[in-house]
Amino acid sequence: MMDVPLTTWLLFEGAATHHRHSEIVSRQPGGELFRYTYGNFSERTRKLMNAFDTMGIAPGAVVATLAWNSYRHLEAYFAVPCTGRVLHTLNVRLSPDELAFILRDAGDVAVLVDPEFLPLIEQIAPRVPSLTHIVVLTDDAAAAADSTIVAYEQLLAEAESDYAAPELDERQPASLCYTSGTTGQPKGVVSTHRSLFLHALAVTSAAGICVGPGDSVLPQVPMFHASAWGLPFAAVGVGAKLVFFGGPLEAAPFVDLLLDEQVTVSAGVPTVWVSVADELERRPGANEHLRHIISGGSQPPAALIEHYSRKLGIPLVQAWGMTETSPLASVAWPQHRMRSWTEESVTHAARRQAGLPLPGVLVRLRDEDGNALAFDGASMGALEVRGPWVTDEYLHGRGAENFTEDGWFVTGDVAIGSPDGYFVISDRTKDLIKSGGEWISSVDMEAAIMAMPAVIEAAVVAAPDPKWGERPVAYVVPRPGKSIELEMIRQHLETTGFPRWQLPDRVEVIDEIPKTAVGKFDKKVLRALDGS
Amino acid sequence: MMDVPLTTWLLFEGAATHHRHSEIVSRQPGGELFRYTYGNFSERTRKLMNAFDTMGIAPGAVVATLAWNSYRHLEAYFAVPCTGRVLHTLNVRLSPDELAFILRDAGDVAVLVDPEFLPLIEQIAPRVPSLTHIVVLTDDAAAAADSTIVAYEQLLAEAESDYAAPELDERQPASLCYTSGTTGQPKGVVSTHRSLFLHALAVTSAAGICVGPGDSVLPQVPMFHASAWGLPFAAVGVGAKLVFFGGPLEAAPFVDLLLDEQVTVSAGVPTVWVSVADELERRPGANEHLRHIISGGSQPPAALIEHYSRKLGIPLVQAWGMTETSPLASVAWPQHRMRSWTEESVTHAARRQAGLPLPGVLVRLRDEDGNALAFDGASMGALEVRGPWVTDEYLHGRGAENFTEDGWFVTGDVAIGSPDGYFVISDRTKDLIKSGGEWISSVDMEAAIMAMPAVIEAAVVAAPDPKWGERPVAYVVPRPGKSIELEMIRQHLETTGFPRWQLPDRVEVIDEIPKTAVGKFDKKVLRALDGS
Repeated sequence: MMDVPLTTWLLFEGAATHHRHSEIVSRQPGGELFRYTYGNFSERTRKLMNAFDTMGIAPGAVVATLAWNSYRHLEAYFAVPCTGRVLHTLNVRLSPDELAFILRDAGDVAVLVDPEFLPLIEQIAPRVPSLTHIVVLTDDAAAAADSTIVAYEQLLAEAESDYAAPELDERQPASLCYTSGTTGQPKGVVSTHRSLFLHALAVTSAAGICVGPGDSVLPQVPMFHASAWGLPFAAVGVGAKLVFFGGPLEAAPFVDLLLDEQVTVSAGVPTVWVSVADELERRPGANEHLRHIISGGSQPPAALIEHYSRKLGIPLVQAWGMTETSPLASVAWPQHRMRSWTEESVTHAARRQAGLPLPGVLVRLRDEDGNALAFDGASMGALEVRGPWVTDEYLHGRGAENFTEDGWFVTGDVAIGSPDGYFVISDRTKDLIKSGGEWISSVDMEAAIMAMPAVIEAAVVAAPDPKWGERPVAYVVPRPGKSIELEMIRQHLETTGFPRWQLPDRVEVIDEIPKTAVGKFDKKVLRALDGS
Repeated sequence: MMDVPLTTWLLFEGAATHHRHSEIVSRQPGGELFRYTYGNFSERTRKLMNAFDTMGIAPGAVVATLAWNSYRHLEAYFAVPCTGRVLHTLNVRLSPDELAFILRDAGDVAVLVDPEFLPLIEQIAPRVPSLTHIVVLTDDAAAAADSTIVAYEQLLAEAESDYAAPELDERQPASLCYTSGTTGQPKGVVSTHRSLFLHALAVTSAAGICVGPGDSVLPQVPMFHASAWGLPFAAVGVGAKLVFFGGPLEAAPFVDLLLDEQVTVSAGVPTVWVSVADELERRPGANEHLRHIISGGSQPPAALIEHYSRKLGIPLVQAWGMTETSPLASVAWPQHRMRSWTEESVTHAARRQAGLPLPGVLVRLRDEDGNALAFDGASMGALEVRGPWVTDEYLHGRGAENFTEDGWFVTGDVAIGSPDGYFVISDRTKDLIKSGGEWISSVDMEAAIMAMPAVIEAAVVAAPDPKWGERPVAYVVPRPGKSIELEMIRQHLETTGFPRWQLPDRVEVIDEIPKTAVGKFDKKVLRALDGS
């Protein structure tokens, strides 16, 4: 068979010929719609490739982006790796100190930045000696305040649109993303051309997110984190219509975009689907084109899955993964034999699970002594993953303890495998509560508390206990006008099946659960409150 | 990223854990249904792996199958390559001489054979010195007539069911299939583990055949040719239910199986879909589970596509490929923007095309001087293909003229690219008719003649002509009781848009169009009749 390297160029190549009339629609943060074709995208991306050459950005150099989802961000997604450079997406929610650390750590030489984040970059640029080029994603030449700053459209206006496919090795670095773990320094994960191609193909699979030429895809996951779950690479590879919602989520304009652009597949974290559920309910025929939505990043509440299925007629399908797994590792599609099952059984067996591994991804569960655990619906163990799009190291050799000697990645998640072959995340290893020698899952308890009508958010963490080692404490955000007391929570948990010894001894009412830059509960902060 | 080799084992691995309750249903040629789970399949396949070791079949040895689609054939599909041996599928429709040539050419050491083909293998075995093991796919120990023959179930009964994953190089040979070209010697195409894995993943893509865990797949394409379009590897990789119809096609039992097993995706050549169309029409709700059917191997009549869409409510989607392309290279999914088009426009722009290339597959058209041709809806050129699952050679260096210096495979097809990005096959290069310096497409003319109610089959070939170089001759099989004359055909072609100079000067009425072992019109035989 031909020795054709698996590269991002291979995904890009068809845009000009086979998908040239397919559309890309990009909502700017102000609300304005920008609309063009794959033909335009292909031409402009080639111009950007030439611009990088003209700017003297070396092969293999790291080029950052600090931007919302947009067509210009998409152009960078291809122009940077397709020319042998490394695309480094920066999370817009990081603090200046975190950004400066990451840019310095990665040795970025250029950054493509949305106008609103330019002051932030200018503030930290002096602390990043490698950074020699700042490109503002705008057509406003005035943005180029000094000689190191240039407007994106000015660069493109001066560039040629022909660009010959370069020689690329499928194992060379193509992109870089830092994990914003809740502990320790941020750690860089490098993807190769091979891993991006394979992951993109798996995303297009009916076992993945299921994206083909007939789809219109709205990745509401940010391009600045975990490559928007690989959807930009996957969608361009198959010629799907791509729809971007730039800027922070707003329910009504988001749903407008979803319906107007006849979106068939969308993907985002559970809070997105919580935020837009009411708005979707107000629009008849919201599911006319929308075939399914993918929810990942954390476990969606069971009520949310049911709401989408019963009220809106839209399957909400869970996916699981991490930056270290590119990120898509599993998707919770129901199996064919479940067609004859009740809706309730399917929800329990499939929809509430983290998923079935994609073809190519291997998953195992191990106990504290390293013994393999069966998928028996009961045994809870450390989740470990292996596959051609799973990382085997962090940049600069950090976090070596996350890789086993036999070549598996230790996710830090604790999971239970089901007899049906799915697995579900019980907790982060470090968030498990060990009380009297037995494990308590904080995630299950949080989900149960958040199902109470009076509760908006809840996080459960371990507090040190002289007798039991650790005991659970619930931090709860009540709905406005509602009050929450310990006994209400204990009673609710007991009626939903938690044994008495697991029930929390203490409840703390707070205004908001602290969150990380990717929107996850920051339990490090909560634990610090308790001095643990 | 982890250096995990892309292998068939990677597709097989999840069967035991993640898909163990998924079903495999296999209709025996006699009509009996055999039904088991992926768990059983995994266990039996591992036993077969051990049996191969016990039999002393060397690593890298070539192991043939001569069998209909069945669960045992599926076990061989994985046990042979997963243990580092090479799976060689033999077409059951080949003549003894052809089979003997191919077995000798490939150096097969073992053959797994359906009982009905055992006499054939016994007849040719003396002419294949390398062949030391014959395994009959049966539980009937009496089939083991002499010491070189053994019953499959006897082998498995004696084998252990544990088998550790062996070390495999993704570029090592995994399977072998001969192209039954209509000219010259059969040529062997070797697939690697890498190409089989990538192809399988592409088959599961929504840009491919679109197969996920929720599907029930009936590959009506034979496992003895072009790997049943990779569907066995793809379906096992995602844990889809698999349904096999063993033996020659029979419409009523085929449709029974399709409905009873709630098949969602099926794939076959156009004659399959012609044969079962009436039967499907008699069954209400045939499309309750069936999401789409894939038609490939040759161009389906336009009327067939419309019939499935309008009468049955089942999309019939064209795919294109060759043994040399693993085989799937393109699928004709309509693009998203076509949702607002009329059914007629979509049929013209997408459904009647050979497709859009899969992500990873590159396609180009070139004129006789090697110049690239535009996708303009008019320019007809030689179709060339490149990609990680396209072969770069035939076994023993045959057919070197089919590979260009810059690394593309010359398909031998002539195609036209459309402005929408699709391409359609106009003809085989050698079947084009050159009359007075202008090309006439035999395929288009055949399709038009076959649309006449009085015609069952038609093939158009070139006859030598002293004045024009070549002129078209039509070989026609009329429906029983109908008669066909030259003038009827000329009038029909003229009304459907063929220019006068292209109309055939001669019609020959015959009982049946001669066919190759894979069911294609054998124009070599027809041309010989005309002495060209």
